[in-house]
Amino acid sequence: MTALPASIAALHAAYAGGLAPAAVMAGLEARHAALGDPGIYLSRPSTAAIAAALAALPPFDPARYPLWGVPVAVKDNIDVAGMPTTAACPAHAYSPAESAPAVARLVAAGAIITGKTNLDQFATGLVGVRTPHPIPRNACAPDRVPGGSSSGSAVAVAQGLALLSLGTDTAGSGRVPAALNGLVGLKPSVGAIPSRGVVPACPSLDCISVFARSVDDAWACYAVMAGADDRDPWSRPIELGTPGAALTRLGIPRAADLHLDGSAQRAAWDAALARLPAGVTLVERDLTPFLEVARLLYEGAFVAERDAAFGALVPPEAMHPVTRRIIAGAARFTATDAFRGLHRLAELRLATLPAWAGIDALLVPTAPNFPTLAELEADPIGPNARLGTYTNFVNLLDLAALAVPAPLRPDGLPFGVTLIGPRASDAALAATGSALMEGFAA
Amino acid sequence: MTALPASIAALHAAYAGGLAPAAVMAGLEARHAALGDPGIYLSRPSTAAIAAALAALPPFDPARYPLWGVPVAVKDNIDVAGMPTTAACPAHAYSPAESAPAVARLVAAGAIITGKTNLDQFATGLVGVRTPHPIPRNACAPDRVPGGSSSGSAVAVAQGLALLSLGTDTAGSGRVPAALNGLVGLKPSVGAIPSRGVVPACPSLDCISVFARSVDDAWACYAVMAGADDRDPWSRPIELGTPGAALTRLGIPRAADLHLDGSAQRAAWDAALARLPAGVTLVERDLTPFLEVARLLYEGAFVAERDAAFGALVPPEAMHPVTRRIIAGAARFTATDAFRGLHRLAELRLATLPAWAGIDALLVPTAPNFPTLAELEADPIGPNARLGTYTNFVNLLDLAALAVPAPLRPDGLPFGVTLIGPRASDAALAATGSALMEGFAA
Repeated sequence: MTALPASIAALHAAYAGGLAPAAVMAGLEARHAALGDPGIYLSRPSTAAIAAALAALPPFDPARYPLWGVPVAVKDNIDVAGMPTTAACPAHAYSPAESAPAVARLVAAGAIITGKTNLDQFATGLVGVRTPHPIPRNACAPDRVPGGSSSGSAVAVAQGLALLSLGTDTAGSGRVPAALNGLVGLKPSVGAIPSRGVVPACPSLDCISVFARSVDDAWACYAVMAGADDRDPWSRPIELGTPGAALTRLGIPRAADLHLDGSAQRAAWDAALARLPAGVTLVERDLTPFLEVARLLYEGAFVAERDAAFGALVPPEAMHPVTRRIIAGAARFTATDAFRGLHRLAELRLATLPAWAGIDALLVPTAPNFPTLAELEADPIGPNARLGTYTNFVNLLDLAALAVPAPLRPDGLPFGVTLIGPRASDAALAATGSALMEGFAA
Repeated sequence: MTALPASIAALHAAYAGGLAPAAVMAGLEARHAALGDPGIYLSRPSTAAIAAALAALPPFDPARYPLWGVPVAVKDNIDVAGMPTTAACPAHAYSPAESAPAVARLVAAGAIITGKTNLDQFATGLVGVRTPHPIPRNACAPDRVPGGSSSGSAVAVAQGLALLSLGTDTAGSGRVPAALNGLVGLKPSVGAIPSRGVVPACPSLDCISVFARSVDDAWACYAVMAGADDRDPWSRPIELGTPGAALTRLGIPRAADLHLDGSAQRAAWDAALARLPAGVTLVERDLTPFLEVARLLYEGAFVAERDAAFGALVPPEAMHPVTRRIIAGAARFTATDAFRGLHRLAELRLATLPAWAGIDALLVPTAPNFPTLAELEADPIGPNARLGTYTNFVNLLDLAALAVPAPLRPDGLPFGVTLIGPRASDAALAATGSALMEGFAA
């Protein structure tokens, strides 16, 4: 069975040396069968559909088709023509007439779609277990949550079933599963990739995100998808740029704002800080307003944005019980509460501004905790909320973020850190994330 | 009694010729007494306070102090140190510790504040009659509404009690009263002037606006107030620029979207179009999505933004009955409705974009109607809503606008038209508004 090369560059080198995409796809099929994890994919293209996709590939020309022959898994809340979209809610299944623009751009760049991946239903969750289907197994710790909501997409890349995958990231769904499976998770500036063709969670915040093994590969995928879409009300293209010099002045949480559960998480954070590239200076920052914004997302009226987006798509009884319970919580809030929440967000955004003085980006743990499946069974809400401590505020504050794997914890489990920067800092964060990973690997 | 010169330039020329600001202020005092309209001002500075303000003026230097000795009236929902702020709700009266930044900038530029003006309570209304105080009399038609919510500010300038005045404009409160009193009403890009120190109506939309007799004078006042404020969550400064060449490609409502009540309004619109400057080309536009956005503001959940802003400031029984009824309407809407409204707004904004292709700005009637006081007494809601047809959508779509007086109606009553352009088009609209007024006067 043909192993999947570890990067786009290696894959393209292999193609240049004669490897056939069909052999790669057959290898992925065999790997998936051998893995025995029925929770990763919710649907996969037929053998005939894959053959047709391969036959439609233009001649090998990676300069012109930067994702030529690259297998990409797609979260099942993003439309791919020819496969159902379900958002992990079978009652909502539909057959999209066309692919989401982001997916169409990937395919036009040569990507081969490997299947639609499992998720926390309607992308509501950071754990990956809120699905009526089997739960994808965490690629590094089978007794722990895979992370969500983009669980299947993260596990697919971590298990070598695809070189890249698409998630979506509203509250952290593209970053938390990256951290918990040892991957890069690129969360673009809001609106930089069109979100048309995505089952909405919070339409004003939803971002398509990328999982990859390296920042270079994540960036290549992002660069193909980014750009305006004149049919998407939420499209807000940015000047993309290209990753250049790494940022050096990083703000980290002051002690009072450093939330890490257990000695292993804490040791991993300390180890990451100890292995930063030369030239990086760290400055402690008061993150109080950031963390209050994070709490707004689920503890306040913002849950009603989810209700507005998908609460009426299916009857309540067709929802996962935890999802249903969260959405039912929206009924507590009036329209007046909603606007009070938006006004409070504006005040808090203002209060975050001083933290940016003198730094180029924030560096935070991607998640404070790494819950076991047993913990989630005992309390399906608490550990999930905790996972969003450093992710929930990012889209509400219109920021960009990049999660990268850090040195393993003392117990060998993965740990991740996230760079957060102003809107349109995506390329600078990518350059910095690459430098961090080099430092961690040294 | 010293008459007030008709422009800043004329006033400054008179000052240069020896006129004393104290004589101007005494003239205004006499004019106010002679006018016998107790509805214009809610409070006025004491004689001693005016004397102190005059004594604090730097030596005459209009280049350095562009509003030196210029009398400016301020709507009573904007803080002026030393005078109470009430928003026309006596139960909400408070003594501000400092002036709003916009007012402080005016005073620093030499302006003399003449008093705080009446308004539709909490700036909620376009008629000017929703006040517990006497209603300011329309300066041109005493049996008709003065327009609101900035009624007192518009009438003060129209009656020669101030050369400039500040209004606020959320739904049209800076444009409708301009049209109904034959004035210029400048509604800046949202956030270009800090709205800190303003009693909020809809904080995400509230703009300080300017009433003046000419676009030049309105611009001079605006330019002094514009700029960032780092304590205002809603501050979004623009590149102000200076009025240069007039725009020539103007979009007007197609017949189906042209709302004008009665033959006098229609004749005035036709007369305005007949007297546009040479070089202007008119293109009819489908305004369906704009007009649907306008209806969102009062017919949908957005009324809850007002409830969130001021609904809890005073007990319901302390509110004007009509204001109370409007605010009570917010209770019909859930937080889910609020987010559905925001999502619908995003879709409609997208739907408005094609209308901008091939035009530089829109030109619309400022208001379709000109209600009598009797009509308002019979129906306090309907004619008010109608007045916002061409104004309500502007801030929700993040646009700039400039209302200018057009040729009088056949019955001698004022009529106005409004230029509407993209965010930050303020200077271009000003240049165009001046050109229009020259054409109308020719």
